Amino acid sequence: MSRFRDEIGEQPAVARRLLEKARRPVAEAAERLRAARPTGFVIAARGSSDHAALYAKYLFGRRNRMLVTLAAPSLFTHYGAPPRLAGQCVIGISQSGASPDVVAVLEEARRQSALTLAITNEPDSRLAAAADLVISLGTGPERSVPAAKTYTASVLALALLSEALEPEPSLAAALERVPAALEAALQRDLELERLVPVLAGPRAVVLGRGFNLSTAEEIALKLTETSYLLARAWSVADFEHGPIALVEAGFPILLAGAPGPVVKDLQEIAARLAEYGCQVIGLFDGAGSLPPAAMVAIESGLPEELSPLPLAVLGQLLAHRVALARGIDPDRPRALQKVTRTW
Amino acid sequence: MSRFRDEIGEQPAVARRLLEKARRPVAEAAERLRAARPTGFVIAARGSSDHAALYAKYLFGRRNRMLVTLAAPSLFTHYGAPPRLAGQCVIGISQSGASPDVVAVLEEARRQSALTLAITNEPDSRLAAAADLVISLGTGPERSVPAAKTYTASVLALALLSEALEPEPSLAAALERVPAALEAALQRDLELERLVPVLAGPRAVVLGRGFNLSTAEEIALKLTETSYLLARAWSVADFEHGPIALVEAGFPILLAGAPGPVVKDLQEIAARLAEYGCQVIGLFDGAGSLPPAAMVAIESGLPEELSPLPLAVLGQLLAHRVALARGIDPDRPRALQKVTRTW
Repeated sequence: MSRFRDEIGEQPAVARRLLEKARRPVAEAAERLRAARPTGFVIAARGSSDHAALYAKYLFGRRNRMLVTLAAPSLFTHYGAPPRLAGQCVIGISQSGASPDVVAVLEEARRQSALTLAITNEPDSRLAAAADLVISLGTGPERSVPAAKTYTASVLALALLSEALEPEPSLAAALERVPAALEAALQRDLELERLVPVLAGPRAVVLGRGFNLSTAEEIALKLTETSYLLARAWSVADFEHGPIALVEAGFPILLAGAPGPVVKDLQEIAARLAEYGCQVIGLFDGAGSLPPAAMVAIESGLPEELSPLPLAVLGQLLAHRVALARGIDPDRPRALQKVTRTW
Repeated sequence: MSRFRDEIGEQPAVARRLLEKARRPVAEAAERLRAARPTGFVIAARGSSDHAALYAKYLFGRRNRMLVTLAAPSLFTHYGAPPRLAGQCVIGISQSGASPDVVAVLEEARRQSALTLAITNEPDSRLAAAADLVISLGTGPERSVPAAKTYTASVLALALLSEALEPEPSLAAALERVPAALEAALQRDLELERLVPVLAGPRAVVLGRGFNLSTAEEIALKLTETSYLLARAWSVADFEHGPIALVEAGFPILLAGAPGPVVKDLQEIAARLAEYGCQVIGLFDGAGSLPPAAMVAIESGLPEELSPLPLAVLGQLLAHRVALARGIDPDRPRALQKVTRTW
């Protein structure tokens, strides 16, 4: 088995450990944040971590009514004139803690006396050193090049922080059910095989909206990195605004979602795309479905806010199966190294 | 000739008119902004207008040191719990002024007493009615489904606002040269034909960084909308972080850029991708080049901050030629209507 598949399978245990060990640093961070009363969050991240940041934009936006800005790192690293960050809480998310541009954003935030928080797997990293507060993911070494466990761990850490900032007993209880939900997703591995033929390449579109726009982006990246499909994610709204022109009979479209305020949008676009003769497939968490998509669904019992966790696992498993079907070793992506030093 | 091509050609005149007519509303907006001293900008937009917003993220970030947040409209329209916007200047960009989710963001901003600004082609629209300040693009009716002139007009309006907020004589002078720069881009139409065979489909990657990340996104959208390629833009930094795994010999990559702090990144990725045997082509504004890319270059004399304007025109012309080469009528994209009512 590949390291990628191994680490996909570790996620329930990783989540269980994080729920235990992150409680104190998350509570500390929440306390500092309540004292500092930032006007918003600025998050710097790359790749999968940037998709966790996109999740946070919806989560902190909805639950904590906080405005979340995704940082443009080149303003810090290349243009030498970073925006003013006073009053913000600046978060850096990086598995390795060594991504130089994420570090640069946090170091600048510190110079500007903004409160800084690092979410990283490496508590001894330069990113952690640059931060006032550190939430350590503690996933154990990530040997797979395509990130899996550090993605869901980052998402879970952000959800813990959101709950700690605005306690809600039902969400706290749901967070405890995350490991079981990830386990339930893993159980669907075999069933995902029937979606694989649709993703034979060379291209695919992945659609989500709201909380699961991040899931769509993450699945598109996993398909691109491990299976060399050009997979492109859009929010349903943006897709309908223009790019939908590109679809034709047979075009592969993957939807990811869960019951909630945006599910109707997903259902409508699924029906419309099926009318055009597209091959519509879906990953779904919860009661209901996306007719007429061919679906793999779980019922984790998690609220929509947390559905990106099991849905990401389904997406990882699917990407892994697509890679194997295409004869690609997901541990050896072409032209890629683990820590990308983008300045 | 198509309406799309007609309206591409109108852009120098549109820019000239905007430079005259927008001066007063831009000065008024700048005055109000200086009085209100917002902590940042929040911009709501869809499609091409969202790429203008991405441009503003870099422009206001670098020139005005303002943090720019791209709004997540579904928090306003679907989840019923929008983030707190007090102290922000909230900008809505919409050609028609009728995009319901952009309107929803501005209406909520107004309820929260944030300063609101509409950038639109329709000063009598609901968007304009919801805004404290209006900058009217005055492009004349946009009949083409793929946006061209309203995109460059929005970008130019944002640049005028940035300059008005922080006057800089050299930039003010450069803004006056924009119509001539767009004219110079139009002169290259025929020359672009030699890049067309590379974009035969079904997929392509478009790369930019910094100010021209917006250009890359806009060109990718134009190729997708008018030529049904699945074209995906990345910042060079994000691309190197993982998606680069997907390239192989012959893979079509289009780079867009200009001299400045990020040009070295573009040059390095061009060389690396050429080593992999990719078909690397480029659009460039300024002295220098992106060896070994096959390029169409202009020397508009504009600073990097304004290069997205002529580069967008080159991208539009290229997308138009690709559509014709593929036998597609760019005025009749499949499955699309002009005002997309995404709720």
